[in-house]
Amino acid sequence: MSPSQKTVTAAVIVIGNEILSGRTQDKNVAHIAVTLNEVGVRLSEVRVVPDIEAEIVDAVNTLRAKFDYVFTTGGIGPTHDDITAECVAKAFGQKLIQNPEATRRLMEHYEHSEMELNAARMRMANTPEHATLIDNPISTAPGFQVENVFVMAGVPSIMRAMLDGVKGGLVGGVPVLSRTVLCNLGEGMVAGGLGEIQERYPEVDIGSYPQYARGEFRVSLVMRGTDAAELDACADEVRAMVTGLGGTPKDLDEDEA
Amino acid sequence: MSPSQKTVTAAVIVIGNEILSGRTQDKNVAHIAVTLNEVGVRLSEVRVVPDIEAEIVDAVNTLRAKFDYVFTTGGIGPTHDDITAECVAKAFGQKLIQNPEATRRLMEHYEHSEMELNAARMRMANTPEHATLIDNPISTAPGFQVENVFVMAGVPSIMRAMLDGVKGGLVGGVPVLSRTVLCNLGEGMVAGGLGEIQERYPEVDIGSYPQYARGEFRVSLVMRGTDAAELDACADEVRAMVTGLGGTPKDLDEDEA
Repeated sequence: MSPSQKTVTAAVIVIGNEILSGRTQDKNVAHIAVTLNEVGVRLSEVRVVPDIEAEIVDAVNTLRAKFDYVFTTGGIGPTHDDITAECVAKAFGQKLIQNPEATRRLMEHYEHSEMELNAARMRMANTPEHATLIDNPISTAPGFQVENVFVMAGVPSIMRAMLDGVKGGLVGGVPVLSRTVLCNLGEGMVAGGLGEIQERYPEVDIGSYPQYARGEFRVSLVMRGTDAAELDACADEVRAMVTGLGGTPKDLDEDEA
Repeated sequence: MSPSQKTVTAAVIVIGNEILSGRTQDKNVAHIAVTLNEVGVRLSEVRVVPDIEAEIVDAVNTLRAKFDYVFTTGGIGPTHDDITAECVAKAFGQKLIQNPEATRRLMEHYEHSEMELNAARMRMANTPEHATLIDNPISTAPGFQVENVFVMAGVPSIMRAMLDGVKGGLVGGVPVLSRTVLCNLGEGMVAGGLGEIQERYPEVDIGSYPQYARGEFRVSLVMRGTDAAELDACADEVRAMVTGLGGTPKDLDEDEA
């Protein structure tokens, strides 16, 4: 679809006790952020919530009102702790139904497998009554979309496949571009000059990200914005500042953010 | 301090555009979750918010009212995009001051370094007026605590050192223990039996976490609770169920969550 001229925003809701217990390291948020950025959608908030109905319903309703798109990950499998479909139905005030097309896909899939389509697996066909399915090319059980909320699996490979399927349908704004200058100076040394450059480029969002390794500080100076020429000019000033302070600037991949 | 008998909860606020852009993979949440769990505090929500004052203030005020403890990471460095101290002061309705003890530590540190304590670095001494400092054994610039909110650095090595310093002072509840049984069956196969076991052990929080690799599904069945004997009995039932279905259960490290 053709890009909107406004900033288009999104939130992610990570549903899962396993992230909150520290048992599992989330690997989905960064991938979703980068993918959305490619289509001109800016990830603006992430919430990680436990497998508790009231918490999930509240997060869905708060964030779907606040942002253009909401993506959820996790909680759509066959076990008792998979309650995302029920929660999203409740958030929208819709009935939870056994979706006919999802049922058809599951029956076809299990017919050709050695596995049985038991009652637990059949739960994966449940969706809110006015949901559209999101294809799952890996393990069949679909995600679904209700209005601006996209419900996806938590398993990273499946989530990625689902997101690939829906991203073409998102109406993005102007893509956000970035320039990154890495330098071998402490953050405190570049801070003054960086603040001055930020004042001269109010449309560019300049971030400073220190790293600390082997007893030395380095800092990545990241410029993000929608105007490539302005970003290039800003990056030139940042490089000149670093050199002027006796440092060595190094360009990282452009547009990688 | 002696443990409370109630469930003690915490939230984490990750402050940083770099996580939302996908540029940086968060490495702090899982570490905080595990560390809190060791002292009987249950991480119950995470929010990732951008470097925007209104968003940070709102997250701090919402979450400090909702949970026993709040931990923030990021935004306490010397650059223009480091606005956490100002935001926390505003959230508590406190003045932002140049903290005398933080100033003393920074002056002492920079006196013995080749670096200059310039105006940008001096910003790292700013705290809300009624803050208590959190030691930074790595790079001196302290974090701080205001009531139940702990403000820490975003750089993982520094964040970990700060958390190590404060965790002994947290009043935890009963520690949450866990048992994990990994099995070579699909989630849909164990779902029915697992739901029945969950009904028999309402005090145990049973989670099912599928993995998908090399075309095969496996599933980790994680039991969390505060009663070790009950967890052991529950884990025995889970193992027996897996064996009964023709699978092979494998115990993972206990209490690792």
